[in-house]
Amino acid sequence: MGGTDIERLIALLARLPGLGPRSARRAALALLRQPQTRMLPLAQAMEQAARAVKTCATCGNLDTRDPCGICADPARDRGLVCVVETVGDLWALERAGVHRGVYQVLGGTLSALAGLGPEDLNVGPLFARLEQGGVREIILALGATVEGATTSHWLQDRLARFDVPVSRVGQGVPMGGALDVLDDGTLAAALLARRPA
Amino acid sequence: MGGTDIERLIALLARLPGLGPRSARRAALALLRQPQTRMLPLAQAMEQAARAVKTCATCGNLDTRDPCGICADPARDRGLVCVVETVGDLWALERAGVHRGVYQVLGGTLSALAGLGPEDLNVGPLFARLEQGGVREIILALGATVEGATTSHWLQDRLARFDVPVSRVGQGVPMGGALDVLDDGTLAAALLARRPA
Ligand SMILES: [Zn+2]
Ligand SMILES: [Zn+2]
Repeated sequence: MGGTDIERLIALLARLPGLGPRSARRAALALLRQPQTRMLPLAQAMEQAARAVKTCATCGNLDTRDPCGICADPARDRGLVCVVETVGDLWALERAGVHRGVYQVLGGTLSALAGLGPEDLNVGPLFARLEQGGVREIILALGATVEGATTSHWLQDRLARFDVPVSRVGQGVPMGGALDVLDDGTLAAALLARRPA
Repeated sequence: MGGTDIERLIALLARLPGLGPRSARRAALALLRQPQTRMLPLAQAMEQAARAVKTCATCGNLDTRDPCGICADPARDRGLVCVVETVGDLWALERAGVHRGVYQVLGGTLSALAGLGPEDLNVGPLFARLEQGGVREIILALGATVEGATTSHWLQDRLARFDVPVSRVGQGVPMGGALDVLDDGTLAAALLARRPA
């Protein structure tokens, strides 16, 4: 089926989330049909992004610079920190354009099943920001899953010693639902309807 | 949302068949999280495949060599030529492992709507093979669509002057269906149940 180079390409594509073996083959074929105009540009964009990508030391976002574009933007309200599970959640909120503050990306949730404990969450920079002062509100925008709720409770405990109001996005996040599959309107509603945690 | 390099990557991924904007973002994130171990290898596989891919001058298959692995394989029966619309169809038949002969990839079908005429089909090499002799049977494995049927009829006309039996895959290809979405069993049944065209 087209040489080991082509088979290797299909195998690597098939490992991407959202692409099964069938769509990986379709994608590979589309690329192979236009090697110069389609495949090389994508390969080069990937290589460039792979070399340029950085994790923001402040918030955990992925960007080509550190601090990331959001943390570096003087127009963003540093006093308003929205805590999310993943970079995908951050991107979803940015697409919805509903949060004018900054973020903290935990990189996951507490999960006994997955063996993820507090030491696996990217919370240090958040505590550092709180200790530096200037944070007026923390919005917990974690998924409405068991793990999201557990993580929210644990975070509230840890945040109690700072005298900063903590709210949780409420109405709008469906039960059992992750944030990054929601439409922009739902995300906006959820953020507006936040309540004290 | 993560720098122009990252946005460009997402935009290019979103143009792949089977990947919408949402799955393109998910795929990009998965790659960005593992730039060294996941993204660079895929980029390099793409670049390698883009530089290596060739269209087989004999059959129209895409491979890293010309003649392709199938045409070059001494174990394949050169007397049995299976005519398919696309390289994807060829790959589907190869995965099913039901055809021990060689192929001719037309690269499309006759389509008034798409403005595709006989001159757009890759049939020259098939006629050349017939003129050279040694072809004992031609199997038309085109989709059971209006365009597939039109193309089959046109090809039969053109093939009539060669004294070679022409069969068509029959039972198994659902009406209106393309070949490359069928399971292996259906493909095998369709090929076994071929009948004179
Ligand atoms: Zn940042
Ligand atoms: Zn070939």
